[in-house]
Amino acid sequence: MKALVYHGPGKKAWEEVPDPKILQPTDVIVHVDTTTICGTDLHILKGDVPAVTDGRILGHEGVGTVTEIGSAVTTIEVGDRVLISCINSCGSCSYCHQGLYAHCLADEGASGIGWILGHLIDGTQAEYVRVPFGDNSLYKLPAGVSDDAAVMLSDILPTGFEIGVRYGRVKPGDVVAVVGAGPVGLAAIMTASLYGAARVVALDLDANRLEKARTFGATDVVNSADEDWVDQVKAMTDGFGVDVAIEAVGLPATFDACTKIVRPGGSIANVGVHGAPVELALQDLWIMDLSITTGLVSTNTTPMLLKLVAQDKLAAASFATHHFTFEQMLDAYDTFGRAAETKALKVVIKR
Amino acid sequence: MKALVYHGPGKKAWEEVPDPKILQPTDVIVHVDTTTICGTDLHILKGDVPAVTDGRILGHEGVGTVTEIGSAVTTIEVGDRVLISCINSCGSCSYCHQGLYAHCLADEGASGIGWILGHLIDGTQAEYVRVPFGDNSLYKLPAGVSDDAAVMLSDILPTGFEIGVRYGRVKPGDVVAVVGAGPVGLAAIMTASLYGAARVVALDLDANRLEKARTFGATDVVNSADEDWVDQVKAMTDGFGVDVAIEAVGLPATFDACTKIVRPGGSIANVGVHGAPVELALQDLWIMDLSITTGLVSTNTTPMLLKLVAQDKLAAASFATHHFTFEQMLDAYDTFGRAAETKALKVVIKR
Repeated sequence: MKALVYHGPGKKAWEEVPDPKILQPTDVIVHVDTTTICGTDLHILKGDVPAVTDGRILGHEGVGTVTEIGSAVTTIEVGDRVLISCINSCGSCSYCHQGLYAHCLADEGASGIGWILGHLIDGTQAEYVRVPFGDNSLYKLPAGVSDDAAVMLSDILPTGFEIGVRYGRVKPGDVVAVVGAGPVGLAAIMTASLYGAARVVALDLDANRLEKARTFGATDVVNSADEDWVDQVKAMTDGFGVDVAIEAVGLPATFDACTKIVRPGGSIANVGVHGAPVELALQDLWIMDLSITTGLVSTNTTPMLLKLVAQDKLAAASFATHHFTFEQMLDAYDTFGRAAETKALKVVIKR
Repeated sequence: MKALVYHGPGKKAWEEVPDPKILQPTDVIVHVDTTTICGTDLHILKGDVPAVTDGRILGHEGVGTVTEIGSAVTTIEVGDRVLISCINSCGSCSYCHQGLYAHCLADEGASGIGWILGHLIDGTQAEYVRVPFGDNSLYKLPAGVSDDAAVMLSDILPTGFEIGVRYGRVKPGDVVAVVGAGPVGLAAIMTASLYGAARVVALDLDANRLEKARTFGATDVVNSADEDWVDQVKAMTDGFGVDVAIEAVGLPATFDACTKIVRPGGSIANVGVHGAPVELALQDLWIMDLSITTGLVSTNTTPMLLKLVAQDKLAAASFATHHFTFEQMLDAYDTFGRAAETKALKVVIKR
């Protein structure tokens, strides 16, 4: 089969590789119909994720058709059209029993479990993919849900919703600020209204992204390049700050921004993937009754989000800005890699 | 009357001052029967709290007898024996309606509200004290509750319980680590069992304090001077770390210690008062599904704790290690200031 293979920092190729095989009785082989590229894939290509080694097929998002199942698989059948979750989990360990699938304790060979696709095992940017613990890591798709919508449920929508909106404890009437209007920030913006947020303020340095944020549900936008951006945000509240600040970038400056705009008693939900420590101003924050949360998506809300997409309550497909075929995989990377210029949110790649 | 008056960094005196008067219709004047000294008072005396100015009577903990009430006071009567809470609050603003009394929005003259006694207005280390918003800031004491027990409910017990145990979301079966076995750390240790903690591990550098911690309910102790202290703590869990780590010191090193021993999906509850920023290792912690909380006690659990003390379920009086009279106020400060040597936990000062 053909697949997008990582060959060390800066090197990738769309090349011929062996087809995946069932290795464990709980495995499922999926013929990938649709995949997409995540910001994390770009980080891997820069060499930021050393656990990813030469020869690894990238990708942890996808929709496909089941072609083979292991002997222990009970709920997935050959021919099923499925969503491939970015998190693989056994469903049976103490972390899975808490719904914290990202921290699943099962052992996938020598590689651990949780986020493993396109990381510790071969991923979804390929014609076929082996999905460990298929019963707990695949979701059958209703006929009415398009591939463009479904593939957004592999990672970005549950990430923004679980780690941003739910960990941030968004409640009816809240003012919510989302720092960073990239795909995951937009996913938080789109899902904040599910818990009744009254105002959703998008913050970004890029005016184009801020305009885009309005179409995803932001009621207000603030360019954080403005000198008075903190005052602008506070003016949208009762003066004390936002109820919830969601960090969706992963830089010290954007985390710090959240601490500047949150009210006493409020929440900061960190969604961004950080590569460096941040300075936490506990000398000011100790007294503020804050909740600061972190997390990797567990995809425990995937069934809820899938239902909302099927009910036309969540316009998941609107993240899909560009379309490519598998043979155009490198063009898709190029377009996504120059997102500031191409205005790409998610590039959808189909068979 | 006589009172302990702050006269700038390093200077204090037990001296004659004017009696307090009713200034607002919601004020209550209390004849102080019992007071105590807080670590915060020592910080003030070092000059660490610049909002406290020359001439201020210190103290925010006390038990006394009501001698005068303002015209708007409805639930407190002259002659009532009352607990004086360290937090004054109106009970009517949006923060009070959430139970976040520490962030009360009412205006006490020019001084704000929340923690004001012995800070922005004159405090309880005096024969008499004016208590703003008496209806919401005083608690009538049942006859069976001693002054020694009651005065621990002014600050330390609700602080350890609310900001440590409750913000840390302690639940049945949890392993809870408390970093720092001073009075507030011991208050967290004592109250962790209220939510069913299975093991409560006290951490400190001082072997004497660790022994003391056992008498307050610690099931295990670890000297954090030991090179392998992290391994010792993790060995008391399933190997993944504690469910809840409570920071009860207020230093970067002790906050950092909490991040080293908490499990994925766990909580860090910061109780300590910090004077400097901490480095938060988000490059490691972003993925861990942590909840990190901060807070100033709101004393919204005071009625619950008072009930437990009255039911003999909480041995609050065991914090009282030394007793003094008001005339021995300076000796009390001396004993408390040399706590490592005198083994003082709380010094109780009575009329």
